[in-house]
Amino acid sequence: MLGQGKTPEQVVAIATRLAERSGRLLVTRVGADIFAAVKEHLPDATYHETARCITLDRRREAPVAGVAILCAGTSDLPVAEEAAVTAELMGCAVERVYDVGVAGIHRLLDYLPQLREARALVVVAGMEGALPSVVAGLVAVPVVAVPTSVGYGASFQGIAPLLTMLNTCAAGVAVVNIDNGFGAGYLAAVINRLAVSEKRD
Amino acid sequence: MLGQGKTPEQVVAIATRLAERSGRLLVTRVGADIFAAVKEHLPDATYHETARCITLDRRREAPVAGVAILCAGTSDLPVAEEAAVTAELMGCAVERVYDVGVAGIHRLLDYLPQLREARALVVVAGMEGALPSVVAGLVAVPVVAVPTSVGYGASFQGIAPLLTMLNTCAAGVAVVNIDNGFGAGYLAAVINRLAVSEKRD
Amino acid sequence: MLGQGKTPEQVVAIATRLAERSGRLLVTRVGADIFAAVKEHLPDATYHETARCITLDRRREAPVAGVAILCAGTSDLPVAEEAAVTAELMGCAVERVYDVGVAGIHRLLDYLPQLREARALVVVAGMEGALPSVVAGLVAVPVVAVPTSVGYGASFQGIAPLLTMLNTCAAGVAVVNIDNGFGAGYLAAVINRLAVSEKRD
Amino acid sequence: MLGQGKTPEQVVAIATRLAERSGRLLVTRVGADIFAAVKEHLPDATYHETARCITLDRRREAPVAGVAILCAGTSDLPVAEEAAVTAELMGCAVERVYDVGVAGIHRLLDYLPQLREARALVVVAGMEGALPSVVAGLVAVPVVAVPTSVGYGASFQGIAPLLTMLNTCAAGVAVVNIDNGFGAGYLAAVINRLAVSEKRD
Amino acid sequence: MLGQGKTPEQVVAIATRLAERSGRLLVTRVGADIFAAVKEHLPDATYHETARCITLDRRREAPVAGVAILCAGTSDLPVAEEAAVTAELMGCAVERVYDVGVAGIHRLLDYLPQLREARALVVVAGMEGALPSVVAGLVAVPVVAVPTSVGYGASFQGIAPLLTMLNTCAAGVAVVNIDNGFGAGYLAAVINRLAVSEKRD
Amino acid sequence: MLGQGKTPEQVVAIATRLAERSGRLLVTRVGADIFAAVKEHLPDATYHETARCITLDRRREAPVAGVAILCAGTSDLPVAEEAAVTAELMGCAVERVYDVGVAGIHRLLDYLPQLREARALVVVAGMEGALPSVVAGLVAVPVVAVPTSVGYGASFQGIAPLLTMLNTCAAGVAVVNIDNGFGAGYLAAVINRLAVSEKRD
Amino acid sequence: MLGQGKTPEQVVAIATRLAERSGRLLVTRVGADIFAAVKEHLPDATYHETARCITLDRRREAPVAGVAILCAGTSDLPVAEEAAVTAELMGCAVERVYDVGVAGIHRLLDYLPQLREARALVVVAGMEGALPSVVAGLVAVPVVAVPTSVGYGASFQGIAPLLTMLNTCAAGVAVVNIDNGFGAGYLAAVINRLAVSEKRD
Amino acid sequence: MLGQGKTPEQVVAIATRLAERSGRLLVTRVGADIFAAVKEHLPDATYHETARCITLDRRREAPVAGVAILCAGTSDLPVAEEAAVTAELMGCAVERVYDVGVAGIHRLLDYLPQLREARALVVVAGMEGALPSVVAGLVAVPVVAVPTSVGYGASFQGIAPLLTMLNTCAAGVAVVNIDNGFGAGYLAAVINRLAVSEKRD
Repeated sequence: MLGQGKTPEQVVAIATRLAERSGRLLVTRVGADIFAAVKEHLPDATYHETARCITLDRRREAPVAGVAILCAGTSDLPVAEEAAVTAELMGCAVERVYDVGVAGIHRLLDYLPQLREARALVVVAGMEGALPSVVAGLVAVPVVAVPTSVGYGASFQGIAPLLTMLNTCAAGVAVVNIDNGFGAGYLAAVINRLAVSEKRD
Repeated sequence: MLGQGKTPEQVVAIATRLAERSGRLLVTRVGADIFAAVKEHLPDATYHETARCITLDRRREAPVAGVAILCAGTSDLPVAEEAAVTAELMGCAVERVYDVGVAGIHRLLDYLPQLREARALVVVAGMEGALPSVVAGLVAVPVVAVPTSVGYGASFQGIAPLLTMLNTCAAGVAVVNIDNGFGAGYLAAVINRLAVSEKRD
Repeated sequence: MLGQGKTPEQVVAIATRLAERSGRLLVTRVGADIFAAVKEHLPDATYHETARCITLDRRREAPVAGVAILCAGTSDLPVAEEAAVTAELMGCAVERVYDVGVAGIHRLLDYLPQLREARALVVVAGMEGALPSVVAGLVAVPVVAVPTSVGYGASFQGIAPLLTMLNTCAAGVAVVNIDNGFGAGYLAAVINRLAVSEKRD
Repeated sequence: MLGQGKTPEQVVAIATRLAERSGRLLVTRVGADIFAAVKEHLPDATYHETARCITLDRRREAPVAGVAILCAGTSDLPVAEEAAVTAELMGCAVERVYDVGVAGIHRLLDYLPQLREARALVVVAGMEGALPSVVAGLVAVPVVAVPTSVGYGASFQGIAPLLTMLNTCAAGVAVVNIDNGFGAGYLAAVINRLAVSEKRD
Repeated sequence: MLGQGKTPEQVVAIATRLAERSGRLLVTRVGADIFAAVKEHLPDATYHETARCITLDRRREAPVAGVAILCAGTSDLPVAEEAAVTAELMGCAVERVYDVGVAGIHRLLDYLPQLREARALVVVAGMEGALPSVVAGLVAVPVVAVPTSVGYGASFQGIAPLLTMLNTCAAGVAVVNIDNGFGAGYLAAVINRLAVSEKRD
Repeated sequence: MLGQGKTPEQVVAIATRLAERSGRLLVTRVGADIFAAVKEHLPDATYHETARCITLDRRREAPVAGVAILCAGTSDLPVAEEAAVTAELMGCAVERVYDVGVAGIHRLLDYLPQLREARALVVVAGMEGALPSVVAGLVAVPVVAVPTSVGYGASFQGIAPLLTMLNTCAAGVAVVNIDNGFGAGYLAAVINRLAVSEKRD
Repeated sequence: MLGQGKTPEQVVAIATRLAERSGRLLVTRVGADIFAAVKEHLPDATYHETARCITLDRRREAPVAGVAILCAGTSDLPVAEEAAVTAELMGCAVERVYDVGVAGIHRLLDYLPQLREARALVVVAGMEGALPSVVAGLVAVPVVAVPTSVGYGASFQGIAPLLTMLNTCAAGVAVVNIDNGFGAGYLAAVINRLAVSEKRD
Repeated sequence: MLGQGKTPEQVVAIATRLAERSGRLLVTRVGADIFAAVKEHLPDATYHETARCITLDRRREAPVAGVAILCAGTSDLPVAEEAAVTAELMGCAVERVYDVGVAGIHRLLDYLPQLREARALVVVAGMEGALPSVVAGLVAVPVVAVPTSVGYGASFQGIAPLLTMLNTCAAGVAVVNIDNGFGAGYLAAVINRLAVSEKRD
């Protein structure tokens, strides 16, 4: 559930219903005040401060490796963590690579072994948004690109990285909405589990 | 290889090199004249008229089912076929569903059984671009959405369906560039084969 | 009267003049503070909290059925209610269908009987804005589409749903300004009453 | 059917099917060459040169008055006529007022008696797009506004009149896509017939 | 001087220097707090609340008639008054016509005699911005059009009326920046005085 | 009359009517072929090749000095000449200054004496559009700025110079539509004659 | 380091690490509160109030002349100073020319001797952004142009001057992001030192 | 001289004048037909087919190394070559690196030794435009970035790479207009010669 623009009462009402029905809960884009209200009714809920998400998971499943999430640092962390928390709630173990940027290409190359073990990558980038292209040139699995609204001037609240990602010269990249960490984490988890579930059959 | 904007000589030179090196070839966005030039050097190449693609595949692998491609009709066919031809060259059998639109929702519902057998869907749409959202609400696998530049007026050469798709309220959707049938077919094939390859292990 | 951007004094002055002249009053986009000021001079005025409107109706006419208003939920309610309150003040009984979205198409289909009884539909949608197209494919009466500024990222304060609606592939749809619930409710009421008034003749 | 972007063969195939099924046919945005092809299979089809439409109507119904269509002159005629032909095929008699502009307000005022007899107005305008607002201030029935791509410079292929119309200060106006004469004529006819059909009941 | 974005100290410093040098002063877009600071140093300065301007004029010249300023009402007043105060400081007597809009064309026609006495008109309009075209169709003198950022949704902070005005079908209209009442008042005064000064020669 | 988008027959019909009624004629944006058709019916008409205009003037009035038109050179000539021809037809003698640009400021300064004799200036500029600001800083009369669609890349068919001119830091500048030489020449002539007519009184 | 969007703790952590490693520090876009936190850990750091930067330089090198920075006044000072502080930290002596604008061209010409001594110029401008073109027409060295978000209306937060600068008719100009004083100062310093370092060899 | 939009006669007239005055000539964006006309008057002129430029250089100076030009391949060659030809005419020896892209980062790394010998780099890129950022992260000299209009869909004729480059996270990058190879080559040559000329002193 997108918590943004909802009152604490509205969030609590929907959250308790969702938690009961499915044993799982994800509320994105909420502050600590909303969490406090939810916590009263769902004491086993957890708040993820950087991701600004509430989660709850009453099912007990072992996480499945296969999702890696990359970004360039401090400013993109909230979106990257929203993606990570989403994928984790959907049963994935997430490899976080949070200090790589296109202007320091050698650091990215150092991570190649980890990246090549993933079945799906989420690459989060603001400003120029070039990281997904460079990453997709190095791996053979799907790359879900997330532009962020971080930046100033001609980044136009995320339009610049959005366009960069849509125009990628690398194959295997698809894009979600600006700041949509949830959508990217969800899609990466779906791809990862698709492979795993067939494996198990 | 993107054939658009290249001379016949340039296409022939790159195409013969690619065919030799990998035993496979895909040239997108070329007319029959370019194909004639390629055919002289690569007699086993094939031209796909609607898709405006040249392919060649000297490997002999049985296609793997799991990719479905949807669009609303005549105008979106070139992009849908570019996606289909790409996925086929990458070893996938493609289910084509080419007459479904959001203003005739019942026809789409009739195809549900076929859609639910796919591991990855490509949904192509111009003008309003709402089809991927409706489809993603009906299936549980990744949907790769492709906006097309078909339309007039406020479709702005594909900006309208691009924005619709990026703003989808359905989870599991990611978007590629306007008219980028190749990118969508490639990504769907990667997702499909990822699952299959693990299954085989 | 659009209350937004006016001082309480300005609203009170215009409101009392309008109420006297026509026996009816509609002030849109005002907070409870403005209502308090109006209430002092017009004690029979009513405040609609979700719609953020003040109304007053000294005429006593039986409402005429024929207008239905649809939206997908919590975030679009203020605009949908602005439309509903407007149509009601103009003498229409309004059918509210507030929990239907394109990613859950079956719920919408459940409402078909109600929708087919209306003479005019107002369909409110943010983000991707695809609901009016789907609805117009199911009915044969005019659909007034209202894009909302709800959303984030590439919704661009309502540009995305606005473009979606303008590019609709369904016939019988016309569009009003972003968030213009008033305009949509007014137009639906005019269409409804046009039919009814002739009937009575 | 939108003829634009279809081959003569495609148009003929769809047109003959539609004509058989419903006894009526409308093909928009086609040249005389396409009409020649259609004429061979459907000898009772008619070509409207200014509107660039093909129509055929095997039903024999008396047209119902109630639709008026306005524009400022030569450049907007194709779109206005597309609207007129559409409304006529749907059984409406159309009042054409084709020489009124906002910079010559007195000529518009001369037409007031005719305008006030209509149940629905289509107002077509390019460049500044102000005509619908002025007209809607003079009548009490729905105004369907159609921006046209006619103009140059900052008209941006119809964006300028589109924005003008969406921002109208007059109530009772709704907007369709740039150059969408068909959509406007269809909607006006639906509104007109809605009133008439109830009257007849 | 544009006061916006300057500290009280900066405004006072520049204002006192300007007042001394020329005996006249105009500071636009300032609040009452800045005026308080200026008043301490320039006790003969005046604050215009609606226009949000400070003026001072130590020269004693009789104002010259010839400038009229039009707008549609409450929301556009600050910009209209900024234009009026500017033209007055430049020695013009200003005719204010502040309650005319394109959706109520008859009220505008009532003012024709006054409008036809002016040598230059400033027409201020937000939302759809159609007023300058209608006015220019009624007079034979220059019309300076000022779009305002008032409005919501697809007015895009004044882009809609700006485009409307640039695309005017009426001759004799030129446009200044969004909300630039100063520029319009200045230009109208220059045109008015140009005529008058020659007359006196 | 704007000739663009009209057939030779339409132009001839309107042109002969206008010439008869007023003894004057201006048709803008027409090629030599249209002129040939007009010439047959109006043998005293003249074609201005660079301006792409047809004029005819059966009244015999001495031209009045006071309008100067500036541009940077070859590419902007058609628009500058459209302005010049328009002002001349309206009875003004035009001073042409066609080789001045902001990157060669000294050449502009050499023309100062001529510029300061004008009552109204038309300044035409493409690409960066900075010339009107520089010119307006040097004179005390109205400057009508005309952006042109000349250029490439980020000039966006005239949006760049249009924005530059709207944002001018110089007072006394107003802007007309991109490439609208007619509008600028008309306005400059109106301003010039306004002054002259009063002088004569 | 871009301080904007970082917490005091984050800035302090990165700043102390940078200062230790390189003996130099630059933090841009921070307020006095962040400086207070940094000062506790780095007592030899300096705060530049107008530039909103923190600097620290433990190396002792004589500054090298060759960089000049120009802007039009009060509103552009923060960006100009960010450029100046950056260039100074990189070892350049900076010539500040902060009161020149295109509407007062003579003042600019007075500075020609100083400008012609520089090896690289940074020209900062908001609103119309024409200053870099005029300056580049007067010198033969690289001009780094910085658009600022200062302005209102059609300046669109810096888009207007950005487009002006990209479309410059003067050779030798390159552009950085809106408000990117750091980038411009850095580039000018690199160019200046490139020349100097070779000279010393 | 920009040849685009000029007639052969206009180009010949300006070209012969320039060649005589300075002994050098550069005409950009011209076809072979224009060259044929120029060749008749200036037999020592040369045509560069890929760059679409005419050059002539009667001075005999040894070229100075220090400029490198990079792009990703076939589509960007015309712009890259326009830059190269410009820098060569200005006395520079140019290192061409024309097969490097961000999706194949290892190939770029192979060129590092050559890149690090340059004093100024021109990096040309279309579509996503990420190459300048990656390159600037690897060198310490100025990078002049040139976006190209090559691409389709959301590249929007070069807006996508333009925004990417303006938002670069790498220091030392400045941007010129879309497709402006001349401007980039000119600027790189100025920077290169600045260093060299001081060295010689």
